[in-house]
Amino acid sequence: MSGAGGGGERIVDLNVDAGESFGAYRIGEDEGMLPLVTSANVACGLHGGDPVVMRRTVRLAAANGVAVGAHPGYPDLQGFGRRAMAMPPADLVQVLLYQIGALSAIAAAEAMALQHVKPHGALYNTAVADPEVGAAVIEAVGSAGLPLIALSGSRWAARARAAGLRVAEEAYIDRGYLPDGTLVPRGRPGALITDPGEAAGRARRLVTEGLVTAVSGETIAVRADTLCIHSDTPGAAAIAAQVRRVLLDAGVRIAPLRDWLFMS
Amino acid sequence: MSGAGGGGERIVDLNVDAGESFGAYRIGEDEGMLPLVTSANVACGLHGGDPVVMRRTVRLAAANGVAVGAHPGYPDLQGFGRRAMAMPPADLVQVLLYQIGALSAIAAAEAMALQHVKPHGALYNTAVADPEVGAAVIEAVGSAGLPLIALSGSRWAARARAAGLRVAEEAYIDRGYLPDGTLVPRGRPGALITDPGEAAGRARRLVTEGLVTAVSGETIAVRADTLCIHSDTPGAAAIAAQVRRVLLDAGVRIAPLRDWLFMS
Amino acid sequence: MSGAGGGGERIVDLNVDAGESFGAYRIGEDEGMLPLVTSANVACGLHGGDPVVMRRTVRLAAANGVAVGAHPGYPDLQGFGRRAMAMPPADLVQVLLYQIGALSAIAAAEAMALQHVKPHGALYNTAVADPEVGAAVIEAVGSAGLPLIALSGSRWAARARAAGLRVAEEAYIDRGYLPDGTLVPRGRPGALITDPGEAAGRARRLVTEGLVTAVSGETIAVRADTLCIHSDTPGAAAIAAQVRRVLLDAGVRIAPLRDWLFMS
Amino acid sequence: MSGAGGGGERIVDLNVDAGESFGAYRIGEDEGMLPLVTSANVACGLHGGDPVVMRRTVRLAAANGVAVGAHPGYPDLQGFGRRAMAMPPADLVQVLLYQIGALSAIAAAEAMALQHVKPHGALYNTAVADPEVGAAVIEAVGSAGLPLIALSGSRWAARARAAGLRVAEEAYIDRGYLPDGTLVPRGRPGALITDPGEAAGRARRLVTEGLVTAVSGETIAVRADTLCIHSDTPGAAAIAAQVRRVLLDAGVRIAPLRDWLFMS
Repeated sequence: MSGAGGGGERIVDLNVDAGESFGAYRIGEDEGMLPLVTSANVACGLHGGDPVVMRRTVRLAAANGVAVGAHPGYPDLQGFGRRAMAMPPADLVQVLLYQIGALSAIAAAEAMALQHVKPHGALYNTAVADPEVGAAVIEAVGSAGLPLIALSGSRWAARARAAGLRVAEEAYIDRGYLPDGTLVPRGRPGALITDPGEAAGRARRLVTEGLVTAVSGETIAVRADTLCIHSDTPGAAAIAAQVRRVLLDAGVRIAPLRDWLFMS
Repeated sequence: MSGAGGGGERIVDLNVDAGESFGAYRIGEDEGMLPLVTSANVACGLHGGDPVVMRRTVRLAAANGVAVGAHPGYPDLQGFGRRAMAMPPADLVQVLLYQIGALSAIAAAEAMALQHVKPHGALYNTAVADPEVGAAVIEAVGSAGLPLIALSGSRWAARARAAGLRVAEEAYIDRGYLPDGTLVPRGRPGALITDPGEAAGRARRLVTEGLVTAVSGETIAVRADTLCIHSDTPGAAAIAAQVRRVLLDAGVRIAPLRDWLFMS
Repeated sequence: MSGAGGGGERIVDLNVDAGESFGAYRIGEDEGMLPLVTSANVACGLHGGDPVVMRRTVRLAAANGVAVGAHPGYPDLQGFGRRAMAMPPADLVQVLLYQIGALSAIAAAEAMALQHVKPHGALYNTAVADPEVGAAVIEAVGSAGLPLIALSGSRWAARARAAGLRVAEEAYIDRGYLPDGTLVPRGRPGALITDPGEAAGRARRLVTEGLVTAVSGETIAVRADTLCIHSDTPGAAAIAAQVRRVLLDAGVRIAPLRDWLFMS
Repeated sequence: MSGAGGGGERIVDLNVDAGESFGAYRIGEDEGMLPLVTSANVACGLHGGDPVVMRRTVRLAAANGVAVGAHPGYPDLQGFGRRAMAMPPADLVQVLLYQIGALSAIAAAEAMALQHVKPHGALYNTAVADPEVGAAVIEAVGSAGLPLIALSGSRWAARARAAGLRVAEEAYIDRGYLPDGTLVPRGRPGALITDPGEAAGRARRLVTEGLVTAVSGETIAVRADTLCIHSDTPGAAAIAAQVRRVLLDAGVRIAPLRDWLFMS
């Protein structure tokens, strides 16, 4: 049983970032999105989120049968974790454990255990691009005994698996791919897929065939254990609803990673 | 076996606040104090401490055979957690779980489990004085499944025990007592005991007899499962060393709460 | 010429809080509100706002001919400055100067000078209720050489004027009044006026007659140099538009305080 | 009259970073250093310092006849402004104006005007290395109408002057130089000068001859309007005292930049 395997049942997880509001500030469409996905990456207070928001988000996820994971970021609320920070990797390990533990205790108060860790924003991108930062993430996540959601096909994902982590490979339905399996950088033509129908079609093909058409026109293989749906895209809930429908129509099972890939 | 019981072996825990440095800023004498105590209350990043300091402090405690507990405070680094904040109790619960969980994950990376929770500064004082805040602390600590260190003889300590928490009652060796068992407010005559010999003598009597002389001259009963030693008092290490010596000479066993009061 | 004077031209300022967004977080309806008011209280980065938001807000105010003032708050972004903090008054003076200066430099880069200071949230309320905090605000605002917007009829406003400050007395069009001229506390019957027509009617009577009907039914005198319009009330722009219309129809001139009350 | 000119009176400014304490945290030796220097770069609350510390530091500077300048840094207290942040230059301009203005208002309350701006830590280094960041600093400092202290001989200093800023070129007495006039990176041989006598000798030669011996043995020209003395070096006060003595013995006048280079 696998997300991009050959025969048998097709299954996939849908993940969304959640709980990124802070104090009086609201961001994202958690109420609209959580009923449509199976895993929520919950912000941990340093790039977004706060303890009150975290509790509310975990409760909302639990009520929707959605698994929760930690979504740690750089300690930069003003930059929303989207600015790279030159933090020593050894320090970064502690900053990650801090956030994972904080969410873990709040989730436990709702009788929820963390399903996974998925870094946020600039930290995710830097972990993909910079082996030292990628290794710091792997060390922290491994130390917390949790699985990792990482960019499908990346060396970072491979290194995490080699280090003994359980890894879910993540594909994007609203981003264009280069022939080498990396994403078209934002701002370049083909970087964003905004049409819900096109996004849903890509989702179905990713899950049922493990394939996607790159901007160059080539067909490339991309494993998709989990599909990321950005909640801050306008119309995100509409996209998510259509993706669900198309996947279900294609006979795909949509279930949180804990129910299949990370079953212990 | 008890800290202030009738006959048999006398035993007490010595606790100290630790890990309150932040980034480039150093505060406290952790290296000097941890070899002299049995429990460390480790700051959790909101009033003091940061993830890197937390990891270093847990490691230092482990190396000294010192048990670690969470020392959560109000989210007010500039005020060092010494300013009361009008935070709704329900929000405070989450802010406490956040800090407890953050330290717990970092401690686990050093194969350490948290022994207890002891609130910091204005939060501790408010929990003693304000039943709603006290209840929020009890809820959070109970939710985390941890014991609490609370002011000896306080209603807060009694309520925590009634709520099912394991509680260590804490006495002060460097603070004067009023006849009702509360502390002489800072700034009033007799508020502070600064002579190491006097502090050590009070420590011995608190542990071996469960008694202390109030500023009024009366003798009052104060249970002392754990003695707090302030690390930011000048000469704190000298005081701690003398207290240890005097207690050991009196046949008192000095051991972390996990080894006796909180044994499971 | 006065806001609540006897004969002659009636004139009033309309003020609104603005620039309370932070990083990726948006709050308030600045684009909708600024065309409708004459003074903007711009958040200064500690309870809300950040340097980028401040620059954008000043620019937007300038484009709309709106005067800008500093809107300093307690340093508590998570609580949005709505939680009282036990900060020593002498420290508070510096925290206020800090915020006023920060905005002043950013405003100067847009060739704007600050018109006034109006404290935010818990700080405003505490300044009204606590003479020591009120005095700290007066000291800081006086030291910055700026006028103050303060609750109409309050002892705080009187003390500020006695200390030599120029003061604009502020009335509320969407809040109920008690017979003594203070506001009905939120949560009690009559605390909020939500009907735009009623709000506009009250605005007209406040400006043209200097009177308002208290919840008890009595008519009381309230001086209104400036009317506060809350931008976070749903439908705030609609209320503001109606207030403007009704005031203009009544022959009231609506102009920033710098053009009449604070002319030098 | 110039710091590194040909004939006539020799004159130089001595600058030191100050006011980097935060809340309960003390760092640096301001009380010991300020009597020995002529200009203080005062931290502005984002990488270090807080409003209370800023007021205290300005007062201490005023009492010692020391000129004050703003010492803005990246908004990263945990990293003490020593970690590069990928902040858009246009945002950085506002972050700088914010800090400059905040200090300016606090200084004005002590009847002090800001003499200059000198960026801190990673921001200073990035301004030297990255023209876009350097330009953002120039824009902010120019917008504030203040002079800049910049690395002697750097393209950044030249660009600032070309943009119309008054610039003081800064040399280091405790850092080794490469033949091209840049500093030997920390961690490489010859990066640090720790002997007070050697530091003082270099200071004298820099000021009286405008020359320094690079690590390669070559003699290079370095203009020194102001000499930076690091206050966090152990023994900083002793070094500063010896530098003063040697300079005075050599007939050099030591005076704040406002009294000669930035006289208007």
